[in-house]
Amino acid sequence: MNNIITTRIEHLRKLMVENGLDAYLINGTDPHISEYVPERWKTRTYISGFTGSFGYMAITANKALLWTDSRYYLQAAQQLEGTGIEMMKARDPESISLEQWLATNLQKNTMVGFNGSCHVAAEIKSLNKTLNSKGIKINGQLNLLESIWNNRPQFPNNKAFLHPIKWAGTSRSEKLKALFNEMDKVSAEVMVISALDDIAWTFNIRGADVESNPVVMAYALLEKNNIQLFTDLSKFDSEAIEELQTDGVILIDYHQFYQELELLKEKSILIDTHCTNYRIYELLNTKNKLIDGLSVPTLLKSVKNSSEISGMQKAHIIDGLALLDLMLWFENSLGKEPISEFDVAKKLSECRAKKVGYIGNSFFPIVAYRDHGAIVHFKVNAETAYQLQPEGILLIDSGGQYEYGTTDITRTIALGPVSSKMKSDFTLVLKGMIALSSIKFPKGIAGCHLDVLARAALWNENLNYGHGTGHGVGAFLNVHEGPQSIRLDFNNQPLCPGNILSNEPGIYRTGEYGIRIENLIHCVEDSTNEFGTFYRFETLTCFPIDTRLIEKSLLNQQEIEWINNYHKIVLTALSPFTSSDEFKLLKRLCEEI
Amino acid sequence: MNNIITTRIEHLRKLMVENGLDAYLINGTDPHISEYVPERWKTRTYISGFTGSFGYMAITANKALLWTDSRYYLQAAQQLEGTGIEMMKARDPESISLEQWLATNLQKNTMVGFNGSCHVAAEIKSLNKTLNSKGIKINGQLNLLESIWNNRPQFPNNKAFLHPIKWAGTSRSEKLKALFNEMDKVSAEVMVISALDDIAWTFNIRGADVESNPVVMAYALLEKNNIQLFTDLSKFDSEAIEELQTDGVILIDYHQFYQELELLKEKSILIDTHCTNYRIYELLNTKNKLIDGLSVPTLLKSVKNSSEISGMQKAHIIDGLALLDLMLWFENSLGKEPISEFDVAKKLSECRAKKVGYIGNSFFPIVAYRDHGAIVHFKVNAETAYQLQPEGILLIDSGGQYEYGTTDITRTIALGPVSSKMKSDFTLVLKGMIALSSIKFPKGIAGCHLDVLARAALWNENLNYGHGTGHGVGAFLNVHEGPQSIRLDFNNQPLCPGNILSNEPGIYRTGEYGIRIENLIHCVEDSTNEFGTFYRFETLTCFPIDTRLIEKSLLNQQEIEWINNYHKIVLTALSPFTSSDEFKLLKRLCEEI
Repeated sequence: MNNIITTRIEHLRKLMVENGLDAYLINGTDPHISEYVPERWKTRTYISGFTGSFGYMAITANKALLWTDSRYYLQAAQQLEGTGIEMMKARDPESISLEQWLATNLQKNTMVGFNGSCHVAAEIKSLNKTLNSKGIKINGQLNLLESIWNNRPQFPNNKAFLHPIKWAGTSRSEKLKALFNEMDKVSAEVMVISALDDIAWTFNIRGADVESNPVVMAYALLEKNNIQLFTDLSKFDSEAIEELQTDGVILIDYHQFYQELELLKEKSILIDTHCTNYRIYELLNTKNKLIDGLSVPTLLKSVKNSSEISGMQKAHIIDGLALLDLMLWFENSLGKEPISEFDVAKKLSECRAKKVGYIGNSFFPIVAYRDHGAIVHFKVNAETAYQLQPEGILLIDSGGQYEYGTTDITRTIALGPVSSKMKSDFTLVLKGMIALSSIKFPKGIAGCHLDVLARAALWNENLNYGHGTGHGVGAFLNVHEGPQSIRLDFNNQPLCPGNILSNEPGIYRTGEYGIRIENLIHCVEDSTNEFGTFYRFETLTCFPIDTRLIEKSLLNQQEIEWINNYHKIVLTALSPFTSSDEFKLLKRLCEEI
Repeated sequence: MNNIITTRIEHLRKLMVENGLDAYLINGTDPHISEYVPERWKTRTYISGFTGSFGYMAITANKALLWTDSRYYLQAAQQLEGTGIEMMKARDPESISLEQWLATNLQKNTMVGFNGSCHVAAEIKSLNKTLNSKGIKINGQLNLLESIWNNRPQFPNNKAFLHPIKWAGTSRSEKLKALFNEMDKVSAEVMVISALDDIAWTFNIRGADVESNPVVMAYALLEKNNIQLFTDLSKFDSEAIEELQTDGVILIDYHQFYQELELLKEKSILIDTHCTNYRIYELLNTKNKLIDGLSVPTLLKSVKNSSEISGMQKAHIIDGLALLDLMLWFENSLGKEPISEFDVAKKLSECRAKKVGYIGNSFFPIVAYRDHGAIVHFKVNAETAYQLQPEGILLIDSGGQYEYGTTDITRTIALGPVSSKMKSDFTLVLKGMIALSSIKFPKGIAGCHLDVLARAALWNENLNYGHGTGHGVGAFLNVHEGPQSIRLDFNNQPLCPGNILSNEPGIYRTGEYGIRIENLIHCVEDSTNEFGTFYRFETLTCFPIDTRLIEKSLLNQQEIEWINNYHKIVLTALSPFTSSDEFKLLKRLCEEI
């Protein structure tokens, strides 16, 4: 028995009875529908003990269910032991969904409660439609956790600052003008922005309220001549406040937001119900005309301007130098002193931290040796870390936040002798990475059309990987952003110049090892002729790919040329900033194959 | 002025006034939503003079508009001259659609009329929703053309016959059982089948009511113990009728169908509103519970059984031999006697007609020399046909209906010296064809994921083609069938073993020439391992690809091996059936590169 968890659930059930609820829902997100969540909103972890990044729950009088996806089946099984909570499979077409489960297991006239401010509006709309047809009611105004959770963590109150025009490229006023322009197109009088990276982009502000994401807790309401930013004013220094106010931004305390929302009536309001919480939707829906559409800041943010691209290019050179530091340390230490996966992660952060403008990790680094590499989202810690040996392969997936850009790079490196299967696997993954990097494609093409390029070499050997090939990446912002992606899912967002994406095929052999190679690429215009306008990718990531793992006979001439050319570019870009030891190493890593 | 057309439109407008209509719609299809339409239903051609395969119209008191797509802009402009009819761009996101046009140009309380039996139910549902929100009404029971059109062609009354189990592979009873099984899954009591190829497949019948499509005019209503087939009984001989009746099929006259529909009430009825006419939908909708879903016969039909595959294989060998005949004639005649594009088309039909089991063309053949090749849907006729010269390239896209299978093949051949640009273009197209032919892919993948494989080599040289890469193909049935396809459009139908598809990339240089290479391929299971179940394609088409057009330096080793291996297979398959002259030619055409 896990007494802490069962006590919490019993406490919750008591409150459910008091509130006349037959089921209570708990989600893993915050009021801004963030992917990474401040401690205060880790409600699902609090009530279940499960720490995975994805999961949601339904609790009834005699059942407690937690849905999570295949990445976390093992971890959830372990962490839920003795809690009485059952694990359910999410994102699995053959399993029952939360929505189906409630519709099937609850009686007519029952009531489902939840805290609407931590649920996605679109999801609750869909849930409500299903439940309503069964005569089941919902109440989204019940924040039951608040009274159960003693010593609940406070609102994050970290310092915030302005993102200078040098790296933002577009001024706050220009961005606001662009947003109003888009609002005019759909005759919207008000726009609600609640996603933290959308707000950071719009107002050119950055902060440290969410781990790895340089964002500021805030909401925004945009109306002509009434641009309201709701945030903790004490986060900003007076200079920043003055600049914001000069640009017409009215600063209001974070906690005033919902009161202000209640005043809106008979307005046409632009809102993206897929990244807005249900409480906002519910407050606005009855008294106003809502226009539901893809968040405009999300769309505009995904098209980087030339300043953002050059900041990202700088970040990738600096990041390459930090990785070169790490490799030099490896050279000098591996086999001479004990080094664990955890030590590598620590050392990597140290190498990055020495660089000017470094802010922190862009996500929790993955350092995975041997069979740990086959766990796609492996989380290293000091206790369970493997000691590295001078053999086999090590997968390192990490990234940095710099005040001029964000990086995300995966390299799989040989620590000593490797098997021919490892080399063949590595080379097939590399072929996919190169095919996607090299493609030209006409305007209008979406990521789901291109995904196969990264997989074809693996597929032809009956191999595959179970994750997407590429996600959007922010410019000194969140390492995951939309709307564009390179996945098999039917995302019809066309790729366009200015998009930054990861290109990260891999292969995972359970119990053996994992291989992934990841570069960030950005889309640029190639040329226009009678067959249309063509785009292509340029590579941002600037660090050698381990040629000791390449089985050259599997590469064709163009692929060999691609790799040699890439290493020539890396050598030219990093050399001017290297010490003589670093240069010697870099030159070796960049040798022609 | 085109007096015939304007008189017809004036006559129609008079009837519109009598019926209180502000707009009348005319579509280009028949009551079975066929792609190829019997003469009787070429209403759009009758009223406009436009003969293209795709187009629909709206006629108001002072406007007559015809929407068609980019294939027909030129042709429509010519054919509509002097008719007063304006051409509108269909399938063009930047142009106004019929739906938008009506919603914008008609006043509140106006009435739009049409003959519901020649319009797609799903399209009218969508149109009605849009118009209804503007206060515009619709009436789908007005077959105004009937009284205008003197000497309207009769219902097709060609002979029909049974498709033997040897080639059908699955008996009528088994198919009906499978359909009832699918109906049970969604608790449907009745299924309506109105697509002619669905009916032909279900009942193992074939006919000649539509040009190039071996189908029989019919409707079907499936209910347990009440399997009704509505058709012209005089089409069948008594043996066929007896066999159908033995299998429990109740044969009813074609014209009784709608009366029978009116009797249905309080039934749950499975219907595919995307391939069913609006009149059927309207009759059933109010009194019954309709379940709208992808037509079950369409889905089952797309998965060919082993008899169908072996029939298709046989058809492709026979078809290859017919093409070999044609090539031998070319060898002996080109440069010695005048040969036009039209002569080639005629000769090709003659070559096929000599084969046992030949029924007819599977579509109107495309024989296109020089700049005619750049017109994707070029229609050859005796008057405008070019004379062939011993130089440049000729594109031949044609197919045959045989009683054991259907073929569709495109070959682009050199008639003499060709430019290096032609060779490079041809080779890039070939690379795409090979890439798609060679791919292995996991279960769940749809055609839109694979389309890029056929285009990547072209895209990388800033080239492209403006049509899909692959369509489904029937087994001695229509040359175009669904639901699977290989296109950039988001068709989420996963490919599966038994699917037959075309693989036909191309390139079209306006005013110069066109190149297309088309094989039919079928999907087979490859193997299953810890990474999933993998599928691959096998090629059905059995005729050499013109190696004189290949620029070998553009091919990699695997591609060279593919082409040599393909020619080895073709040589082995066709040789046993060749004369010594044919064998000599075939051997030369199949020589290694």
